[in-house]
Amino acid sequence: MGILKINHLLGLEGVSQNDLITILDTANSFRQILERPVKKVPTLRGKTIANLFFENSTRTRVSFELAEKRLSADTVNFSASGSSVSKGETLKDTVRNIEAMKIDMVVCRHSSPGAAKYLTECLDSVIINAGDGSHEHPTQGLLDIMTLREKLGDLEGKKIAIVGDIAFGRVALSNIYGLKTLGADVMVCGPSTLIPRNIEELGVKVSYRVEEAIEFADALNVLRIQLERQNGTGLFPTLREYNRFFGVSKERLKINPDVLILHPGPINRGVELDSDVADGNSSVILEQVTNGVAVRMAVLYLLSGGQEVTDEQI
Amino acid sequence: MGILKINHLLGLEGVSQNDLITILDTANSFRQILERPVKKVPTLRGKTIANLFFENSTRTRVSFELAEKRLSADTVNFSASGSSVSKGETLKDTVRNIEAMKIDMVVCRHSSPGAAKYLTECLDSVIINAGDGSHEHPTQGLLDIMTLREKLGDLEGKKIAIVGDIAFGRVALSNIYGLKTLGADVMVCGPSTLIPRNIEELGVKVSYRVEEAIEFADALNVLRIQLERQNGTGLFPTLREYNRFFGVSKERLKINPDVLILHPGPINRGVELDSDVADGNSSVILEQVTNGVAVRMAVLYLLSGGQEVTDEQI
Amino acid sequence: MGILKINHLLGLEGVSQNDLITILDTANSFRQILERPVKKVPTLRGKTIANLFFENSTRTRVSFELAEKRLSADTVNFSASGSSVSKGETLKDTVRNIEAMKIDMVVCRHSSPGAAKYLTECLDSVIINAGDGSHEHPTQGLLDIMTLREKLGDLEGKKIAIVGDIAFGRVALSNIYGLKTLGADVMVCGPSTLIPRNIEELGVKVSYRVEEAIEFADALNVLRIQLERQNGTGLFPTLREYNRFFGVSKERLKINPDVLILHPGPINRGVELDSDVADGNSSVILEQVTNGVAVRMAVLYLLSGGQEVTDEQI
Repeated sequence: MGILKINHLLGLEGVSQNDLITILDTANSFRQILERPVKKVPTLRGKTIANLFFENSTRTRVSFELAEKRLSADTVNFSASGSSVSKGETLKDTVRNIEAMKIDMVVCRHSSPGAAKYLTECLDSVIINAGDGSHEHPTQGLLDIMTLREKLGDLEGKKIAIVGDIAFGRVALSNIYGLKTLGADVMVCGPSTLIPRNIEELGVKVSYRVEEAIEFADALNVLRIQLERQNGTGLFPTLREYNRFFGVSKERLKINPDVLILHPGPINRGVELDSDVADGNSSVILEQVTNGVAVRMAVLYLLSGGQEVTDEQI
Repeated sequence: MGILKINHLLGLEGVSQNDLITILDTANSFRQILERPVKKVPTLRGKTIANLFFENSTRTRVSFELAEKRLSADTVNFSASGSSVSKGETLKDTVRNIEAMKIDMVVCRHSSPGAAKYLTECLDSVIINAGDGSHEHPTQGLLDIMTLREKLGDLEGKKIAIVGDIAFGRVALSNIYGLKTLGADVMVCGPSTLIPRNIEELGVKVSYRVEEAIEFADALNVLRIQLERQNGTGLFPTLREYNRFFGVSKERLKINPDVLILHPGPINRGVELDSDVADGNSSVILEQVTNGVAVRMAVLYLLSGGQEVTDEQI
Repeated sequence: MGILKINHLLGLEGVSQNDLITILDTANSFRQILERPVKKVPTLRGKTIANLFFENSTRTRVSFELAEKRLSADTVNFSASGSSVSKGETLKDTVRNIEAMKIDMVVCRHSSPGAAKYLTECLDSVIINAGDGSHEHPTQGLLDIMTLREKLGDLEGKKIAIVGDIAFGRVALSNIYGLKTLGADVMVCGPSTLIPRNIEELGVKVSYRVEEAIEFADALNVLRIQLERQNGTGLFPTLREYNRFFGVSKERLKINPDVLILHPGPINRGVELDSDVADGNSSVILEQVTNGVAVRMAVLYLLSGGQEVTDEQI
């Protein structure tokens, strides 16, 4: 019913260039609202949005909550330990109950890949994936891309390197899909044990040397190392070893000192990223956080059936 | 000051037929709001409602919160582990403090029977019982009755069977009081160890065979088996045994295939209720959830002094 | 930019008499709103306030949340266990991220003295200290002082005794600074192990006998004994011993039966304060709770740049 082809935001895989551009342009308009003294529009007044977080999250939840409140939606939060909803049946019952309370949209984070898609099969509500296991985290991908466009302009042919734990990485995957659709040249870089086999099939370059990624890139998206993944898999290097070989430091950036630095946060300072780089002139990390609210406002607005926002409306 | 005789909603015991009908009719009007694109009315704007949940609850809490927000009230949530407020004194201090913050209404769930009534002795605010131990859960009773009226019309002479753990059951008790006041013919059914002695004094029939209840009833209200009650009491059968003798299955319903199926949720599928029945044509379980929001809106509205809602107002 | 000299509320130390009086007078105006049927003003509509509670708190958090909602601000709550933000760096990252979401004001409770001040060095937002370790709890001090002024009039020369654990006491310290600035005559009283050396330098009298404090005072501010401080320090008496020597009882108050009784709550009844005193005619404890919401509204309003409130505006 809206201006987008998609009815839900489950991932960036398969989202058309047109839809991506519409979301990003709308987010730019909402971004202006965030700079005003009154950061609120009545767009979603009387709509109810349920935030279902079956996995811990502070930033993403707060960012969605702010986006919802600034659109004047009513929100209910629903946090559940994974255990009580670990069975698909129970998840289904939970969300069908919530929908029966006449919810318009559901924002869902869940540890199982495909959880958001599964919800679209149980519910009539609009579903927005806020991270489903190792699969996708599309609003993170969008906010990264929004920040890149802001700094680099049209992404056609721009060189973006994603550094870190690509195998586990829903952030990596959403970035790859979105960036490729917009014509960017993408490289992934990390220890070989953390890069999925056949990732080249997604049209990305692969490198196992961070120096090569730095030299290649207009922007580096440095992913957070999930400390909990270290235990006993044997696949994961120690933090010290990781920092030694893949840590992004001022020293290493001498090859390409102006490369843009992105990071989805929270940063493990001194592991994947050194403090002077995180806080340096080329870092756009806090810009990403601001854009996160704007992108989520745009997604909520457009998926609720809104038209592209013109300047007069805002 | 309002149109109701009651000033608080502590239980359905003793609530007059007139008051029940006023609440149910008002809930029907609010139900229409829930089907609109904008599900919000300014009725309780500037009122503050405190949700005090001293016992875990997700559904009931979310349902009340949605009802409050859709009436434009401000809400504060207050969850406490039972331990920190286990002594009456402390509960009193807690709620008097909250009231001193100038709260208009208090929604309270507590593990002690009588907790809500006790609050009316400490506070001037309007109190709504959201479940007090094994005593009553009046808004659950009201939403069950609203759903029954919607499907069966006037409940005078209608046959309703409540199946399950009647002894522990605040849902059972609230249903019995409300249904009897409206002239329904009520049967309770369960293992003899789970049916209180002398329950016949409330004017209900008793059966120890689920087949008898199914044959009797226009509607079955199948209660959730509280898994935590199983441990070591000796009174409680195993889940397998319970399902074998009291589980409501398609096979068993052959005696009376069109009987309405209600369940307060969350369902233990395969224990008290089989999935194909829960999701079948005669199930009104999700209808109950929707009606729960409407009934709570009606109770909050009427107890805050609101008049019966006419169509023009909505 | 506002009418106050201070830009943040980090403590009452150094806050001028003028600023104190402006806050207290504005709070009196807001107090009137709390007595109305509609307890809400549109003053902070479109502003976003983040409540960052890195330490457990129910009352203070709820009081701030109510103050914010009654000013029509949007709020986000952020609770964190101390451990995840125990390092300064991480706290800084956390709050800078939150600020990047375009927050206007931050209310912060943290176990480290100086945490709120530290935030002013990292952020552009207005910071309000809701308790920083053993340092200050300025809104508690303000609500105590507001209540004292309400009952005793101008505090110049009035005699106020603070009884209890002065060494640990952020409530004591904020009271001392504010009361001294307003010209009150302040005495602190408690076991010698719980009174900091050199406290006389703040211009207060010291007593180790509660009878002396009772005799001296127009009002007693009886502090809560932190039960968790008892373990093994050797400095802290048993509760029984504490009650025996410092407990404020009806019997002890015979020396000065009309002395006003304040307590920041929650009360350990029978330890620092007996029930018949806490609930007696001279107790203004619930008054303090109401004033707490009004004072927090005033602080939020004035620090957001608001002018002194006139009667027409309210």
